[in-house]
Amino acid sequence: MNVCLNADVGESFGPVRVGNDEALIPLISAASIACGMHAGDPTMMIRTIDIALQHGVAIGAHPGFNDIWGFGRRPITMKPQDIEYLVTYQIGALQALAATRQMKVGHVKPHGALNNMAHRNADVARAVARGIKAADRDLVFFANCCSEMTKAGEAEGLQVAHEAYVDRPYDADGAMVSRFNDNAVITDPRVAAEHVLRMVSEQALFARDGTRIPTPIDTLCIHGDEPTAVKLAEATRQALAVNGFRSVPIGEMRLAAPRADSLASPEQPLDVG
Amino acid sequence: MNVCLNADVGESFGPVRVGNDEALIPLISAASIACGMHAGDPTMMIRTIDIALQHGVAIGAHPGFNDIWGFGRRPITMKPQDIEYLVTYQIGALQALAATRQMKVGHVKPHGALNNMAHRNADVARAVARGIKAADRDLVFFANCCSEMTKAGEAEGLQVAHEAYVDRPYDADGAMVSRFNDNAVITDPRVAAEHVLRMVSEQALFARDGTRIPTPIDTLCIHGDEPTAVKLAEATRQALAVNGFRSVPIGEMRLAAPRADSLASPEQPLDVG
Amino acid sequence: MNVCLNADVGESFGPVRVGNDEALIPLISAASIACGMHAGDPTMMIRTIDIALQHGVAIGAHPGFNDIWGFGRRPITMKPQDIEYLVTYQIGALQALAATRQMKVGHVKPHGALNNMAHRNADVARAVARGIKAADRDLVFFANCCSEMTKAGEAEGLQVAHEAYVDRPYDADGAMVSRFNDNAVITDPRVAAEHVLRMVSEQALFARDGTRIPTPIDTLCIHGDEPTAVKLAEATRQALAVNGFRSVPIGEMRLAAPRADSLASPEQPLDVG
Amino acid sequence: MNVCLNADVGESFGPVRVGNDEALIPLISAASIACGMHAGDPTMMIRTIDIALQHGVAIGAHPGFNDIWGFGRRPITMKPQDIEYLVTYQIGALQALAATRQMKVGHVKPHGALNNMAHRNADVARAVARGIKAADRDLVFFANCCSEMTKAGEAEGLQVAHEAYVDRPYDADGAMVSRFNDNAVITDPRVAAEHVLRMVSEQALFARDGTRIPTPIDTLCIHGDEPTAVKLAEATRQALAVNGFRSVPIGEMRLAAPRADSLASPEQPLDVG
Repeated sequence: MNVCLNADVGESFGPVRVGNDEALIPLISAASIACGMHAGDPTMMIRTIDIALQHGVAIGAHPGFNDIWGFGRRPITMKPQDIEYLVTYQIGALQALAATRQMKVGHVKPHGALNNMAHRNADVARAVARGIKAADRDLVFFANCCSEMTKAGEAEGLQVAHEAYVDRPYDADGAMVSRFNDNAVITDPRVAAEHVLRMVSEQALFARDGTRIPTPIDTLCIHGDEPTAVKLAEATRQALAVNGFRSVPIGEMRLAAPRADSLASPEQPLDVG
Repeated sequence: MNVCLNADVGESFGPVRVGNDEALIPLISAASIACGMHAGDPTMMIRTIDIALQHGVAIGAHPGFNDIWGFGRRPITMKPQDIEYLVTYQIGALQALAATRQMKVGHVKPHGALNNMAHRNADVARAVARGIKAADRDLVFFANCCSEMTKAGEAEGLQVAHEAYVDRPYDADGAMVSRFNDNAVITDPRVAAEHVLRMVSEQALFARDGTRIPTPIDTLCIHGDEPTAVKLAEATRQALAVNGFRSVPIGEMRLAAPRADSLASPEQPLDVG
Repeated sequence: MNVCLNADVGESFGPVRVGNDEALIPLISAASIACGMHAGDPTMMIRTIDIALQHGVAIGAHPGFNDIWGFGRRPITMKPQDIEYLVTYQIGALQALAATRQMKVGHVKPHGALNNMAHRNADVARAVARGIKAADRDLVFFANCCSEMTKAGEAEGLQVAHEAYVDRPYDADGAMVSRFNDNAVITDPRVAAEHVLRMVSEQALFARDGTRIPTPIDTLCIHGDEPTAVKLAEATRQALAVNGFRSVPIGEMRLAAPRADSLASPEQPLDVG
Repeated sequence: MNVCLNADVGESFGPVRVGNDEALIPLISAASIACGMHAGDPTMMIRTIDIALQHGVAIGAHPGFNDIWGFGRRPITMKPQDIEYLVTYQIGALQALAATRQMKVGHVKPHGALNNMAHRNADVARAVARGIKAADRDLVFFANCCSEMTKAGEAEGLQVAHEAYVDRPYDADGAMVSRFNDNAVITDPRVAAEHVLRMVSEQALFARDGTRIPTPIDTLCIHGDEPTAVKLAEATRQALAVNGFRSVPIGEMRLAAPRADSLASPEQPLDVG
């Protein structure tokens, strides 16, 4: 019983510190590194790669909207092709920096509003999947459980890791409770550990209203910018270990093979109002 | 007698148009594409790659400072390592986008103030050269004639193409006349053509005060954002052709081999006042 | 029969040129000046103020989203309060710069996606109106005809100038045809002039499907970044003059007085998905 | 024996937290608020104004370079006029937001690299002083002791508050030790308190090499983004109180009157290499 514990990291830039990557990265098995658009900068990308390298943690790209003021958490309506290229751009930047350390970018996890929009909107999800595939078709797409992303990833022939959140409660449709609501973030390590154990044991999400939503769960995400991130990671790791789960790199997970008949759908304009 | 005619292109972004790439790119043999920091954006990078592809023009990266308001023309004092990673970041982004068109990034030409600082400052020049080498050690470094860049490129073991400017007059030390002076840009196609012919024929720069500065000249640069860029490119091409020069991709130039004994110098802090 | 011809200007920044303000501003009676968020920069704001001053043209603020890559044309979902403060910020910056020339900011016209969102969304419209009122309650709110903006402006007790577009066709609900459609911009000066005359003569918008939408029309807007802006302005001015309309500063228009009983509605969270 | 304790605050933006303004602002008598260029955003500016208002703390503008990645700490070479308008822009934005709370911006303190450049470079200092004066000639210019800023402020007829740093050691020329050196920031509250007491008691700076540099000291600055800011503020306040100094708003300090014969010097181009 394996699961890949991942976190969003590398979100500091210049002298501004976001999160505690030195403490968090040793606790996870996959680091999703910000790529300079919503947060992070080239020097921070290298530093984060170095921390991951030091602890034997796999790295991935964490592309977001080009919106530092909003930390990538404000939905921006873009044409799908613009999103596609924006994603490839960020992955490429990280790939080149990672290569200087003989590291390979292994996965991609969209950030913030881009992730949320891709969750619900098939055009955005497809754009993200294409942007990933263009950078490297062997990249694993970390895609929210029960989202348009998993479908888009499979349609593009990518390996998809179904992702659930350690620190976020769910709505009945399998989407995270929006940050515009109260209690949208789980900050109590004990609550998080129970939440995680229930999800991975039953391979299902559980919404606040009690709805049970069956789904494969390959990877668990912790938001690295939350002040409670390190404590949640420790509690989650321990709870997983005690209950017989191993936290492993995504490469050691047996992901469902993409459908051989996957076909790219025709490009559609995003409804931009 | 070959020379590679290059231009800075892809400096539009969103709906903002800078330069006339559709008209200029067919006239050159190497396109240096802005990478989103001083200008350009991921979609524009793809569009520019597509234009180059259509006309059989080689592509390179044109990394600059992260300063859209200043169009990368304002000197920013950064630590050399920050510059190094900033350069690698931008090249990597372009490499990933170019790969979607089966195109390879063949050269790197720093932009604006980064280029000017690297001209004079050995630490900046070395940082740029390292950033290039980290992305791909086969990249050709387009380096200003008579600059610290050519030395740094050779010291890092890169292939260096000595570059002179079609549209810029020179000072006696072989540096371009600063844009903070009047008449810092040559806008008359006839003047540009004569300026170019004299330089490539004699393999020397000629300063405004008459100083003759011998140097290899492998490539000639036109600034694509100048309104006169297309006219200068036409005049230059014709003048070169009539006088027996061929405008060729940099790969067809015989560049001096980097010194076998090139040694990276120890890293030095940039004097940042 | 008076009308105020306005244009979006000051959208250049650094060495990047957007529009032809020198030619356009003399043709209009109110200049809406970009404030550095979607375009423009402090120096360009001063230069634009100076051009307006030279030609006796009234000035206003043209606040937009903080999104240079998107030129403020990409919808960004923000909390209404964040929009309110973003609007006040930009107006304040322009007020301070205008004061150095003894000029007063007289009106506010939201830009691009902010304008489009405020057209339809009452919360965004109210946030914009509040942001304007906070900066100076005597500012005239240039608000799209048939929009939530006119209502919000009146509810906040602002003077509202109903605005129609010289260069944009309309849908049956009185909204501009989206730029994501073809033919969303009128570029033929003759078509624009006829479009304008019909609107101001009948005090109504006319949708592409023939729908006639009665509305006061106090001011006419030309997008200054369109290459055809100057020609449209000339044609419009002439057509208005020949047909007995005078292009006057908004201060000379008799705008409907805001309702005395205007009451601020309680703040509501923006639905951010 | 009065002194005005000030701090740089409001440097958070979006969800990114920089400093601990809630704890720091009650300890100071003047808050210098970031204005969105190097840090801060319009919503954060309002929040910071509200905290200051709640604690009866005077507010000022803290303008910096437009460089979020560098947090305004990277020197950017700009033309003096561009700096002047950049400063006025930021002050104006804060003035408009402050007016919504019936607060008045009382002082201006340049941030980071802009402050450091203005310390040494007369053209930059003059540009900053002009930018302040243009926004409101009654603003007090918080200017580094022993700098070109104090001279420029006086030459422009501004009230100048001589400023020393609680958390920064000095070089023999009266400049702060550069952040590019080790030990450039004082983090031990006891060391800071002694450093402060010695300076205000003797009205002199003391360089690391022992040099004593007599100067008026009207205000003391704490960098709000340092993790030790609150502890230093507490220690400094207490040390001042115990030794008979009162921390007062700058309005209660008797600043030297600007020279009546102050004359603006002719504008000079900044040497931009």
